[in-house]
Amino acid sequence: MIVVMKSGSTQPQIEHVINLVREMGLKEHVIVGTERTVIAAIGNDRLKDKSKLETVEGVDKVMPVLAPYKMASREVHKDRSVVSIGKGKIGGNRIGVIAGPCSVEDRNQLLETAHAVKESGAIALRGGAFKPRTSPYAFQGLAEEGLKILAEAREKTGLAIVTEVMSIEQVPIVAEYADVFQIGARNMQNYNLLNKVGEQTKPVLLKRGLSATLEEFLLAAEYIMARGNHQVLLCERGIRTFEEYVRNTLPLAIVPELHRVSHLPVIVDPSHGTGKSYLVDSMSRAAVAAGADGLIIEVHNDPEHAMTDGAQSLNPKQFAEMMKAIKRVATAVDREV
Amino acid sequence: MIVVMKSGSTQPQIEHVINLVREMGLKEHVIVGTERTVIAAIGNDRLKDKSKLETVEGVDKVMPVLAPYKMASREVHKDRSVVSIGKGKIGGNRIGVIAGPCSVEDRNQLLETAHAVKESGAIALRGGAFKPRTSPYAFQGLAEEGLKILAEAREKTGLAIVTEVMSIEQVPIVAEYADVFQIGARNMQNYNLLNKVGEQTKPVLLKRGLSATLEEFLLAAEYIMARGNHQVLLCERGIRTFEEYVRNTLPLAIVPELHRVSHLPVIVDPSHGTGKSYLVDSMSRAAVAAGADGLIIEVHNDPEHAMTDGAQSLNPKQFAEMMKAIKRVATAVDREV
Amino acid sequence: MIVVMKSGSTQPQIEHVINLVREMGLKEHVIVGTERTVIAAIGNDRLKDKSKLETVEGVDKVMPVLAPYKMASREVHKDRSVVSIGKGKIGGNRIGVIAGPCSVEDRNQLLETAHAVKESGAIALRGGAFKPRTSPYAFQGLAEEGLKILAEAREKTGLAIVTEVMSIEQVPIVAEYADVFQIGARNMQNYNLLNKVGEQTKPVLLKRGLSATLEEFLLAAEYIMARGNHQVLLCERGIRTFEEYVRNTLPLAIVPELHRVSHLPVIVDPSHGTGKSYLVDSMSRAAVAAGADGLIIEVHNDPEHAMTDGAQSLNPKQFAEMMKAIKRVATAVDREV
Amino acid sequence: MIVVMKSGSTQPQIEHVINLVREMGLKEHVIVGTERTVIAAIGNDRLKDKSKLETVEGVDKVMPVLAPYKMASREVHKDRSVVSIGKGKIGGNRIGVIAGPCSVEDRNQLLETAHAVKESGAIALRGGAFKPRTSPYAFQGLAEEGLKILAEAREKTGLAIVTEVMSIEQVPIVAEYADVFQIGARNMQNYNLLNKVGEQTKPVLLKRGLSATLEEFLLAAEYIMARGNHQVLLCERGIRTFEEYVRNTLPLAIVPELHRVSHLPVIVDPSHGTGKSYLVDSMSRAAVAAGADGLIIEVHNDPEHAMTDGAQSLNPKQFAEMMKAIKRVATAVDREV
Repeated sequence: MIVVMKSGSTQPQIEHVINLVREMGLKEHVIVGTERTVIAAIGNDRLKDKSKLETVEGVDKVMPVLAPYKMASREVHKDRSVVSIGKGKIGGNRIGVIAGPCSVEDRNQLLETAHAVKESGAIALRGGAFKPRTSPYAFQGLAEEGLKILAEAREKTGLAIVTEVMSIEQVPIVAEYADVFQIGARNMQNYNLLNKVGEQTKPVLLKRGLSATLEEFLLAAEYIMARGNHQVLLCERGIRTFEEYVRNTLPLAIVPELHRVSHLPVIVDPSHGTGKSYLVDSMSRAAVAAGADGLIIEVHNDPEHAMTDGAQSLNPKQFAEMMKAIKRVATAVDREV
Repeated sequence: MIVVMKSGSTQPQIEHVINLVREMGLKEHVIVGTERTVIAAIGNDRLKDKSKLETVEGVDKVMPVLAPYKMASREVHKDRSVVSIGKGKIGGNRIGVIAGPCSVEDRNQLLETAHAVKESGAIALRGGAFKPRTSPYAFQGLAEEGLKILAEAREKTGLAIVTEVMSIEQVPIVAEYADVFQIGARNMQNYNLLNKVGEQTKPVLLKRGLSATLEEFLLAAEYIMARGNHQVLLCERGIRTFEEYVRNTLPLAIVPELHRVSHLPVIVDPSHGTGKSYLVDSMSRAAVAAGADGLIIEVHNDPEHAMTDGAQSLNPKQFAEMMKAIKRVATAVDREV
Repeated sequence: MIVVMKSGSTQPQIEHVINLVREMGLKEHVIVGTERTVIAAIGNDRLKDKSKLETVEGVDKVMPVLAPYKMASREVHKDRSVVSIGKGKIGGNRIGVIAGPCSVEDRNQLLETAHAVKESGAIALRGGAFKPRTSPYAFQGLAEEGLKILAEAREKTGLAIVTEVMSIEQVPIVAEYADVFQIGARNMQNYNLLNKVGEQTKPVLLKRGLSATLEEFLLAAEYIMARGNHQVLLCERGIRTFEEYVRNTLPLAIVPELHRVSHLPVIVDPSHGTGKSYLVDSMSRAAVAAGADGLIIEVHNDPEHAMTDGAQSLNPKQFAEMMKAIKRVATAVDREV
Repeated sequence: MIVVMKSGSTQPQIEHVINLVREMGLKEHVIVGTERTVIAAIGNDRLKDKSKLETVEGVDKVMPVLAPYKMASREVHKDRSVVSIGKGKIGGNRIGVIAGPCSVEDRNQLLETAHAVKESGAIALRGGAFKPRTSPYAFQGLAEEGLKILAEAREKTGLAIVTEVMSIEQVPIVAEYADVFQIGARNMQNYNLLNKVGEQTKPVLLKRGLSATLEEFLLAAEYIMARGNHQVLLCERGIRTFEEYVRNTLPLAIVPELHRVSHLPVIVDPSHGTGKSYLVDSMSRAAVAAGADGLIIEVHNDPEHAMTDGAQSLNPKQFAEMMKAIKRVATAVDREV
């Protein structure tokens, strides 16, 4: 930790900071500059609360030295991780596409959509049985019935099943039917839930929160990994900004940045990341070009009558075209779909 | 719902929209303007998904007519609500102050702080027993032991207890010890948890999410109210923006705006809302001047050694001065503390 | 314009709104819904101030019908525009790359960099002679001397010259030496300057402001076009958000969205859009995949000693590799570089 | 400047950074920690470009030690500054209120409004003669005719005149008629204009840009002061965020923060800061309670027919009530209006 004192800070103030640094188990190193004194606190500051020093008398600012996450970090684990989902893999040379409706609505809708996405090259089927909805009056999902339909679709198509788990008591039942736990953006900092999926043996697709920093995102992954489950897929799904022509702003630079600081595979969700079906194709190409290891795409056999997220769902024909398009882009960046 | 068609939209496109509007149970009303056609969909659109129409061919944009929340709305409940917490009330002429440490650390720390805030005029004690922490390696709270210490503090001081509940399985034990359930900002859209506290008989202090819109905030309250618990306190605790000199940006205009559209009492948290103890006093005064019905303030008997949130905690002396300051401001806006 | 009245609005309030609508030269169309009354104001509302109605008694909200821009709109000009810069073109099938240093520092630096970017396939040279700097103490550019060096580089390499103009009195001298006027992000709403370049005969590269909405961006283009200069290149250079690992957040979905609503060519600046040289290559590929018509890239012959923007500048070797990479991606989306 | 090297950085990388630090005229101080090496660069780093080091091989991050502004800083000028505007003062114990219409529309409108705000206790009159408008088709102001009407209002009421100057060639004529130059939010980083008003002898009211950081805001003030004009009034007018119920988000914590780091007086603009006339009264009270040295308020004799900003303008009666309300709040914080 580096503590910069204010100009004109007094000797007792400096000594007080030195004492606090020592109490934290760190060793001080004092540098007297031309206008300011700087106190470098040597030692492992990963678990230390830097903010505590920020309001101490005479202190101007504090900078941590170490990143607060460890198991998710590339410093600790140099090679890129690969996560198996069903028979497929995400994280190697091949780009994995997960597709399907926002919600499981009924057997016909899901099976029809599942067959269509399978045929176009998806390796996994998404579909919500438990739905986090902004309004209490909106459709909340089919619960276990939905999970059963998903399992049937797996049987019929061979696709792995990715579905959201919203709270810890749903974990056992979701574990029974699904191949991958999805943690939604609204639950990225639901720590009890992170701990619980961290104790499971199936992979976790972790969506970035709407306004989570990159550090908070990796710390959420760290929660899961610290409990023993290292099969974490990081998923960027757009952040909240002042922009109005999209539901969320999709910041694709996070793909190469996550690859730089973490070894975990990175998936992009251009459906939530834009909220508009007519922007999904372009953003899927861009995500692949930016280096994404996978995509998760909302596809519905009849978007205009979807119970949820119709505006951002592709129909099967649009999805098939998008798959062709991203295959070409993948080749151009030495990857395969 | 009002649907604006694109310039040059075709008759079949218009008819297709009309059909979709009818399928939603609404009645269309078509207005042919000079450059565009507008289709007003008459009827209760509160539960309808407007986004579905946004990407239909020929549609330019869609505007809902009704607000999506109802029980939280002032249209439905004209008079301002008052919520009892312990022997005090929040929402009437008197402004209620909730104060205490971020976390319950030990018996001495809590009791000392509790006595101090009581003496300065607080009506309730805050203190976390279950702590949502960004890092899995940080202090996670004392759990039930913390709740017991809180209960002891209530017995000794008469202060009501406000404490955070992080997941549904913690609800029974928190209900046993506390007077008010606090739902943290990170859990504002943890719908299972909202439903669960909605079934309880004790009040809920609901914190606004870091990037929740006003509408999403009121819909979270609606979740709680729809299950029968109408004792909801809305708490603004700052939003995430590009600003760097504060931990969060505190948008005080939400206080009069919430009073305009909702009947629920509004509490402001200037501790999280700024993240800096030296800004808390000014922002407390400003919150009272803006019309806040209550404040929630972090106070610690020794902030420099606090296990959590030391940077934004007042010490008892600073809190006493702040209370004097806000009493004067309260008088100036015809309120009392 | 569509005016939604509050529930419980009175007949005199409705009549008052009707009068205001008539005063604006629009014709009212009143729809009495189940819970609310809606007043559709028919006519050309492009130039009307909708906000004025928003705070009138009894009014709940107001939605404009028409987009406020016209000449920049695709409704008015269906075909995509192509803008010539020097001997090259931006906007057709070929993707044009503009490259060069942030600032012109001296003759050697500029000529060396110019030859390098020319060789790798750039069609134009960027370089600032007038520099808008956040600090008054920072290097402010070489002014006319810089323009002369740029002109010499054009002579030696055949590259077109793109350079920033910061105020109206600089317009004549920049017009003398440069091929394209660049309007910087900080000046996107400097209307006097927009008017002035709108009266020129050379193209304008207009950068989006840090927090400009898409509508404000197109209205800035409209200022230029309304004065007669239709050769406008829209440039996305990143927006300000809460993200910390980048200097700005690059929202690539604006590329297909601008193509949807406007006919003007769209250029992406991944150098400012990320602020980190190690992210430029990935974001260049992504921009091309998203459909960008051009790129503008900071290249410096010695980034570690650059006087400005060293952190986001590629060296000539990195630029050459990036050009190879984007050529492959361009082919994959049926474009050429 | 403090440079934190990556874990595993090599000796040659460290030496390379040391060389770069020396080239900047700073002296290195190397600290070898348990996991990382830190290089403290001692000396005046105010004018150094820290970003240049951020992308050098082996470097993890860089922190500046000194704030980049100086004359605006409280470190250099301990006492709070007071700025005279006309016969009044802003910055001392007394809170100065500037009020008037968004635009000067005609003689009657301005004189009627001027008399009304004078009577309620304003010390200065605002009113735009040159209007920066988002749309090229909107009313652009009366120019010199507007300035003459403002001057007449001063003669009749004794109010000082505050009016916006949009470009450097308008400076002489605005200087002729007005008492205070207003620099609008869109021009906060129009450096040529800042330099020009920095050479004048009349005070400058500098509005914060929509997405300017506090540091950028103070650096804009530094531009003006560096040219010799120290009479700068800082004006917060709201920032752009994701919030939708307001035109801008008004972050009042900047008031005490600016007082902490700068000696310049701070004015708040709750009209632009909310965009809604019904929120202005509450936010004016809050601003005064937060410590503002002044307010600038839009008042129009007939807001429903205002040519600009009608939605956020108070009428004279509402303004009179607001003035009574803030006088009481001012007393409660030991100030006077």
